[in-house]
Amino acid sequence: MRIQPVRGTRDFLPQETRLRDYLQEKILHTYVQNGFERILTPALEDADNLDKSEGGENLNLIFKILKRGEKLERAIEEEEFQELSDIGLRYDLTLPLCRYYANNKAHLNLPFKVIQLDRVYRAERPQRGRMREFVQCDIDILGSDSSECEIELIYVMGKTLLAIGMKDFIVHINDRRLHNELLSRLGFPEEHHASVSITLDKLDKVGIDGVREELLEKGCSEESIDAFVELLESEGSMIDLVKSIVGEHEAVQSLEKIITASQKLSAGRYSIKYDLSLIRGQGYYTGTVFEITTPDFPGSIAGGGRYDKLIEKFIEEDVPAVGFSIGFERIFSILSEGGFVIPEEKQRIGVIYDAGMITEAIRDTEPLREEYEVTLFERPRKVGRLINRLEERGFSGFVYADNPGEIRLFER
Amino acid sequence: MRIQPVRGTRDFLPQETRLRDYLQEKILHTYVQNGFERILTPALEDADNLDKSEGGENLNLIFKILKRGEKLERAIEEEEFQELSDIGLRYDLTLPLCRYYANNKAHLNLPFKVIQLDRVYRAERPQRGRMREFVQCDIDILGSDSSECEIELIYVMGKTLLAIGMKDFIVHINDRRLHNELLSRLGFPEEHHASVSITLDKLDKVGIDGVREELLEKGCSEESIDAFVELLESEGSMIDLVKSIVGEHEAVQSLEKIITASQKLSAGRYSIKYDLSLIRGQGYYTGTVFEITTPDFPGSIAGGGRYDKLIEKFIEEDVPAVGFSIGFERIFSILSEGGFVIPEEKQRIGVIYDAGMITEAIRDTEPLREEYEVTLFERPRKVGRLINRLEERGFSGFVYADNPGEIRLFER
Repeated sequence: MRIQPVRGTRDFLPQETRLRDYLQEKILHTYVQNGFERILTPALEDADNLDKSEGGENLNLIFKILKRGEKLERAIEEEEFQELSDIGLRYDLTLPLCRYYANNKAHLNLPFKVIQLDRVYRAERPQRGRMREFVQCDIDILGSDSSECEIELIYVMGKTLLAIGMKDFIVHINDRRLHNELLSRLGFPEEHHASVSITLDKLDKVGIDGVREELLEKGCSEESIDAFVELLESEGSMIDLVKSIVGEHEAVQSLEKIITASQKLSAGRYSIKYDLSLIRGQGYYTGTVFEITTPDFPGSIAGGGRYDKLIEKFIEEDVPAVGFSIGFERIFSILSEGGFVIPEEKQRIGVIYDAGMITEAIRDTEPLREEYEVTLFERPRKVGRLINRLEERGFSGFVYADNPGEIRLFER
Repeated sequence: MRIQPVRGTRDFLPQETRLRDYLQEKILHTYVQNGFERILTPALEDADNLDKSEGGENLNLIFKILKRGEKLERAIEEEEFQELSDIGLRYDLTLPLCRYYANNKAHLNLPFKVIQLDRVYRAERPQRGRMREFVQCDIDILGSDSSECEIELIYVMGKTLLAIGMKDFIVHINDRRLHNELLSRLGFPEEHHASVSITLDKLDKVGIDGVREELLEKGCSEESIDAFVELLESEGSMIDLVKSIVGEHEAVQSLEKIITASQKLSAGRYSIKYDLSLIRGQGYYTGTVFEITTPDFPGSIAGGGRYDKLIEKFIEEDVPAVGFSIGFERIFSILSEGGFVIPEEKQRIGVIYDAGMITEAIRDTEPLREEYEVTLFERPRKVGRLINRLEERGFSGFVYADNPGEIRLFER
């Protein structure tokens, strides 16, 4: 039998699991404290729903579940190899949330402030901090098109990252409407917009020269490219420069409002920055997009945006929506590699008992369990070795079961 | 697009999710308090590992993941339809735990007392309390063949069920070795044992007459069947009766030790019962098996047993093991349908602010978030309606953001 986990997935050791549980608990707690409510959706999702979800590149990364029994036999017999599967594993939590709202709206009130903290699956090429099975921690607000939702999401997200010890992070923000308007004003024809955006999205990977080259290859005019690059490289207030090009566009007003409010609420503990190179890959975004970066990690640790038209794919109802998601594996990489120590952990105590005496050992050490995490060990032949091992494994001390009053704490 | 969740899976509303989180937290906490350590394994598992795991009927219920790209094309071209998949979704947490131990043993110490609390998948016919995606809460002890492990597991499991408010439950216990010995002594030929056990496992579904009929059809002698039925129906101490048939078998000694100790530790809060009709479906059990029933639910709410030979399928090492698992969906059904109320929940307070004033509303009500769960609401035209809705949804009260000091609690 194969002992390694499936490619792109991993096992977590007890101490790693402790850290994951601590961080997820802290994230969930901060979300809940700020009035968001958790829901649960299945990891399995209708394959058609996934395929039609405008998830950009993620649609190429869906794990599909093989049909079973007669349905499978029929697909094979009729050589309908597109029909081998009708269920997939979700690649994010946004599409399932939209389906969830459609399915459960009779029991929900708008605005609906919702938490999802769960596993998702993508058949990506595995690399550091990028797994095929990973956890996302999302907050979303459904049912309001006010940019105050964005302010609230950035505020709660900032608070959450601070609560788990993240520092010096930057919230990058842009607006899809502004981005498209800007491209038009700089002379990129509208039919090029999507393709230009894909190139711009690679800026952090290929640099400005790489972007320039690719845009030329795509047949954009040198003049438009120069204007865009000049903008990217210019110093001074980016938003003022963009305003001088597009005028008083509603997306500019929205961005300025969000940035001003978020800066005030951050109280200097993190920064907010208009970033005209921020695009994000998903096709379903319709307005604001955001991402959070930190000096500790290439790429982003959180991202999100407004998707006002996704729910109406499920029901004929106009439900604007915006969400923000923590990429948990990246946070976990950063903190576990940085030697993060869980604050105020309960102390662990070993109880050493003689073979045959487990009933008494449990009964007599019962009160210890309120204050400590108590692990039972049958007394081995070499007690000293066991005690050394306990100390190495982070236990605080031990007691002999026949003398439960006397806890011998290790000196640190 | 399809708005219902995939067949056999379900969405959970916020209040349901709250209860699930509370219960899982409580279960995890009780396990941890008693010295068990949580680990995580992927939901995806190598298909061969699953197929060869002796999981009994569960092997027919595995969801398989379709191969992708070239690997898929090759399987189709070569008409190797058995090769359409090489990954499956785990059907339980025991097989992944054995693989995990083999993969990570350099970092682990024996005995390893381990927690798993996670989702598993089975393509079963959905029914009440039986889903295709569901949560199991397992504790296992690896590396010891002492029956004190069973005592410890039953003790921790009993404590856990009491902690979440379960009452009047019965721990049923048997031993595969004893079961087989008993069948031999009653004259069932050894080659019939597996088949007889399958029939006996249906006792609660088909009754004694059904069992008798099926055993006759299977060609068992009437004499053997009568002896077994007489045993099943007899009153008085079952274990003494069985002892009078099999003599001083080591499994009898083990069972008696476990039952005596567990009764002592239960202090009358639940009961332990030798149950000679308890078999359990999995092929990998080698000794003790247990199950917990409650008057509130047909079928069991927890189950487990000893599987001393499963880890050696992965590595050439003799690692005895025993585990106990809560079927979380059943517990959740019982408690949510019984109107279970989460004790000591934080109060929820609504903050009503005027449009455009979210920054001030957040800043001024910040201190409330330490004590309450605080949800922001933009002041609607009809404030009375919002306030009624808050009350209905279980909020404790509200404040106007321009007067954050004055919380108006609803009277209950």
